[in-house]
Amino acid sequence: MTTSNIFLLVLGLGAAMPAHAQQTADYPIRAVPFTKVKLTDSFWLPRLKTNTDVTIPASFARCEATNRVKNFEMAAAKSGKFATVYPFDDTDIYKTIEGASYSLSVYPDAKLDAYVDELIRKVGAAQEPDGYLYTARTIDPAHPHHWAGQERWEKERELSHELYNAGHLYEAAVAHYEATGKKTLLTIALKNADLVCSVFGPGKRTVAPGHEIVEMGLVKLYRATGKPEYLSTAKFFIEARGQYKGYDSKSADPFKNGQYWQDDQPVTAQTEAEGHAVRAEYLYSAMADVAALTGDKKLLAAVDTIWQNMVGKKMYVQGGTGAVPAGERFGANYELPNTTAYNETCASVADVYWNQRMFQLHGDAKYVDVMEKVLYNGLISGVGLDGKSFFYSNAMQIKNAMGYHDTEPARAGWFECSCCPTNLARLMPALPGYVYAQKDRDLYVNLFVSGNTTLRIGKQNIGITQQNNYPWDGGLKFTVNPATATDFTLRLRIPGWARNQAMPSSLYTFATPSSQTATIKINGRPVAYTLQNGYAVLARKWRKGDVVDLTLPMEVRRVLANAQVKDDLGKVALQRGPVIYCAEWKDNNGKTSNLIVPAGTAFSTAFQPGLLNGVMTLTATVPAVEVEATSVRTVPQAFTAIPYYAWANRGKGEMTVWFPERVTAVDLLSQPTAQEAAAGK
Amino acid sequence: MTTSNIFLLVLGLGAAMPAHAQQTADYPIRAVPFTKVKLTDSFWLPRLKTNTDVTIPASFARCEATNRVKNFEMAAAKSGKFATVYPFDDTDIYKTIEGASYSLSVYPDAKLDAYVDELIRKVGAAQEPDGYLYTARTIDPAHPHHWAGQERWEKERELSHELYNAGHLYEAAVAHYEATGKKTLLTIALKNADLVCSVFGPGKRTVAPGHEIVEMGLVKLYRATGKPEYLSTAKFFIEARGQYKGYDSKSADPFKNGQYWQDDQPVTAQTEAEGHAVRAEYLYSAMADVAALTGDKKLLAAVDTIWQNMVGKKMYVQGGTGAVPAGERFGANYELPNTTAYNETCASVADVYWNQRMFQLHGDAKYVDVMEKVLYNGLISGVGLDGKSFFYSNAMQIKNAMGYHDTEPARAGWFECSCCPTNLARLMPALPGYVYAQKDRDLYVNLFVSGNTTLRIGKQNIGITQQNNYPWDGGLKFTVNPATATDFTLRLRIPGWARNQAMPSSLYTFATPSSQTATIKINGRPVAYTLQNGYAVLARKWRKGDVVDLTLPMEVRRVLANAQVKDDLGKVALQRGPVIYCAEWKDNNGKTSNLIVPAGTAFSTAFQPGLLNGVMTLTATVPAVEVEATSVRTVPQAFTAIPYYAWANRGKGEMTVWFPERVTAVDLLSQPTAQEAAAGK
Repeated sequence: MTTSNIFLLVLGLGAAMPAHAQQTADYPIRAVPFTKVKLTDSFWLPRLKTNTDVTIPASFARCEATNRVKNFEMAAAKSGKFATVYPFDDTDIYKTIEGASYSLSVYPDAKLDAYVDELIRKVGAAQEPDGYLYTARTIDPAHPHHWAGQERWEKERELSHELYNAGHLYEAAVAHYEATGKKTLLTIALKNADLVCSVFGPGKRTVAPGHEIVEMGLVKLYRATGKPEYLSTAKFFIEARGQYKGYDSKSADPFKNGQYWQDDQPVTAQTEAEGHAVRAEYLYSAMADVAALTGDKKLLAAVDTIWQNMVGKKMYVQGGTGAVPAGERFGANYELPNTTAYNETCASVADVYWNQRMFQLHGDAKYVDVMEKVLYNGLISGVGLDGKSFFYSNAMQIKNAMGYHDTEPARAGWFECSCCPTNLARLMPALPGYVYAQKDRDLYVNLFVSGNTTLRIGKQNIGITQQNNYPWDGGLKFTVNPATATDFTLRLRIPGWARNQAMPSSLYTFATPSSQTATIKINGRPVAYTLQNGYAVLARKWRKGDVVDLTLPMEVRRVLANAQVKDDLGKVALQRGPVIYCAEWKDNNGKTSNLIVPAGTAFSTAFQPGLLNGVMTLTATVPAVEVEATSVRTVPQAFTAIPYYAWANRGKGEMTVWFPERVTAVDLLSQPTAQEAAAGK
Repeated sequence: MTTSNIFLLVLGLGAAMPAHAQQTADYPIRAVPFTKVKLTDSFWLPRLKTNTDVTIPASFARCEATNRVKNFEMAAAKSGKFATVYPFDDTDIYKTIEGASYSLSVYPDAKLDAYVDELIRKVGAAQEPDGYLYTARTIDPAHPHHWAGQERWEKERELSHELYNAGHLYEAAVAHYEATGKKTLLTIALKNADLVCSVFGPGKRTVAPGHEIVEMGLVKLYRATGKPEYLSTAKFFIEARGQYKGYDSKSADPFKNGQYWQDDQPVTAQTEAEGHAVRAEYLYSAMADVAALTGDKKLLAAVDTIWQNMVGKKMYVQGGTGAVPAGERFGANYELPNTTAYNETCASVADVYWNQRMFQLHGDAKYVDVMEKVLYNGLISGVGLDGKSFFYSNAMQIKNAMGYHDTEPARAGWFECSCCPTNLARLMPALPGYVYAQKDRDLYVNLFVSGNTTLRIGKQNIGITQQNNYPWDGGLKFTVNPATATDFTLRLRIPGWARNQAMPSSLYTFATPSSQTATIKINGRPVAYTLQNGYAVLARKWRKGDVVDLTLPMEVRRVLANAQVKDDLGKVALQRGPVIYCAEWKDNNGKTSNLIVPAGTAFSTAFQPGLLNGVMTLTATVPAVEVEATSVRTVPQAFTAIPYYAWANRGKGEMTVWFPERVTAVDLLSQPTAQEAAAGK
């Protein structure tokens, strides 16, 4: 038994954990936890299954094969040489444990459970007696990783990521505890958090963590334990931003003025989504958490403002964020170029976290609209249909058949910095937790995912079942099953796109409003409904077996970008339901860079069960620019669009999201041919 | 021992074979046989080696795997069911035996030799007692292949191909005999030929064979045995054309008027290369053979006229013939479309045979110019660099990244009708036989292939050695080594392309004549030379070690097509030395259909040893048509061209041979965008 194991036994941790109810303030709306939501959905369930069967095992295997596990073993032995590239490689193990934990709660698996236990044992063994856990230093404290700094915490603002590792440890620990009831990883996390709280805080060491997530992690530990230091330290870290005097505030370079780290000014003074997108959105998630838990109005106002900025000026039409490759960061307002779009998959993961929190704060469906956009588009585009090939960045346009990495396959199995695969592995099984939420007698249905849940109103169990073929069909059926007739309000989200709102901002609009609206029947009879914050409010005494039918208009919609988005001027994107479409070379005669989608194009839709695990395709005849003989002209061509999320599963080639509505010839060559010249023309 | 084996022993065949000298008339010029020419060439030798090591074994393996061998076994047993698709599938075995025989004479291989012996035993066992050999009938004579007709020979004009099978048998038999000295296959062939001669002829059965080659084969048997019936039957078959009354002579349909079979009029009345290209070129080869062996002036005039037609109006710039896919046939004059070009590989094989014969008749280098064009371009394009993937048809343009068979690889390992792979297998090892020729004291050097040969002038052995890096470099070195000083004339071909003649016709021309000419030095001293029929005539007393240096101008040449070739109007092809170039997607940013090569484009050349087994590339900056935002414009782009023969070895994508010299916009869409419409523009 190692020292740290003995320590755990001595700690007697269970007694330290109070019930949630002891917390005074919190989100007014609570999500129905994923453990209470059972999916039968034909869109999501296979993805969760693939995550369990393929992604998580592949991720653990890659953690082993790439020496990430070995780092912990060497740290435990205090001998060897850090064997991976980045000091934050520890987090891939934490994140995969988090995903595996969620997965275990749904699909019990003794072998996986035992493997996770053994990994946790190795993590614990790598922890130093005072709780410090960071293999990049512990393996050989005299020669830490060159990003780590000679002393603990000294490079935390820059590159050490000690607190980033800690944050992911906390997230994993709480997930593992909630999913399995085991306290093994939680004990390790708390010991580390206690160290962190003892080191950082008012009158102690201060830093704005270089890569945020420790703030979210500490909040999770606070929720799990009720220990106020965790919340106050999270708040301390958030308030530490904008305090560092070492930046060059006059520089426009985000790496010099602190913007890259969201550290150029206090968060309450920040108005734009800025810097490294993943870090930023983890910060904004934590700001929402702390605002909810403390009632801090200024913090709340800041995060609201930043959200409005991102959603209004800095999000791609498929929900991706972080346009700029250099620094994986947000660009300027309306800086959303297609050919160089970065759109890190992790940013989409972070965006789901953040929007869920914003919804829980405000009860407005617009946050779920954004979350839905991310989930069905720019997030799941990050993982191949095989469950083991990934995008780190999610392109908006491939302009030639080589793809952007000629020597590599379209998607990679792993990355040197492999944050995205493991982030997907942890988000995917948590999806059921985003479907429903509750505030007293208000039941929110946020996502349209077939399955069922049971929640309590007062002392009453209320069953809710969803049956649909979303996102392909707009016919959604909800069956409400209170044990006995009960008064409550069902709040069904009417997606913005079903209300002629392409985006809860002016960033994207539909070219022409639809005349169709979302309609609702209760027990077969049409009902008028009030719309409140994007929800159809259905208040009544619900009886066992009551059926609500919501029908959403599923036309193909032409999306236009705000005219300030230069790259999309004169172009159109295609959306149907929540799904953004793209054209891929494979379905379009080998190219897509030559396709025009004029106003008035008539689309047909068809579900293709054999294509890309089953997708609804859009087809039409469109003009395609071709060089024919010595003419450049448009020729009619069969056009097929597939859901954006499904691209790059059939090799490498051109892909387009934004299509010109028409083209004009500019600056074509005009010298005579040799034949003409010879003929004296 | 089978009946036929006993029969062979009884025949005592050897005594029936007179020396070649007994023939009275023949080609005035004899090729130096391939067995006398040893290659060291870095372009061809690796190809011959690949043919031996890969193509021939793969071809035999495929004959086994696809039941072609089984057909012979079943015919021997007279039981079973014909197990392949076409009645001419027997020929794939004959052709591979032919290739293997050539190969064995250069690379002895006991295992291959024994395998071929065993195959020949199986072929012999399948032969009927009277010499008939056609597995599609013999296996089950009551139920012959549905193309074969109920009776022998009855469908020969149409689809039975009985004489086609016979022709390939004869070609293989003579090759095997000449290469190995064994008479096993020859005995089988002669027995079959004797049957054919007994069935067909004046006063006997008559037919114009549906798919020619029996005529060439009979001539080969005639040369091998001196038996006049073989020559007269060949002549009979040629003269049988145009006699059949069953065609609809008023129809324009080549399948109804007999043109498809070169059977619409007597060959001496034919003036155009017509119908199925492979059949036609086998016929024209046989016409040359018979004209040479009989001195028939009308036949000679006809084949000259037809050659002039093909070379003047019906050949693609890379030497391919047979433009029309429907019927694998020649189109009308100047009908040479790029996107649908058929260009069967077998037609290029046949074209080599035919042009060699035309050269032997006339001693004019123009025939070798055409042969060289075919050899370095449209012929070897038919086999992948791996030696086991093939093109049946050789495209001139791929307009999209899918290639033309989306579900198949760029090249196939075998075809249901698999004539082309086995035709390549037999032509390739015969290549050394096309390098040199002789007429008395005139030595012709036709191809520039490093290696050496020894030939006799009078009683003198003359060694000739070539050292060069052709087709990449224009510096060619010839060393002449007579045993003692000897008077003779060295005729060095000065290729048409080195004399500003893109083609020995007005079909293709160079855009601008080169100011450089081919220069010759003897023993280091420049010499003036007379040009005769395309040959530099170097007559002198040659001494041991005399060195001739021929320097050919190797500029990149812009090739223009005759203005009557509609598809190439305003376009340019690129040639350097004998090599025609193409651009492939792989080297050109994923596309080639958008590339323009304006007059005045400056090319750089570089030998790339690691690319496509080593090729000289052409690079330049050219305008490429791109849709950028809502503009169609040309943008400067790095351009790389590779030898045409090397395309489709790196996956499927666009390929272009003829590039527009400039483009004009025609008929682009001009409706306003939705945004413009909304703004009232």
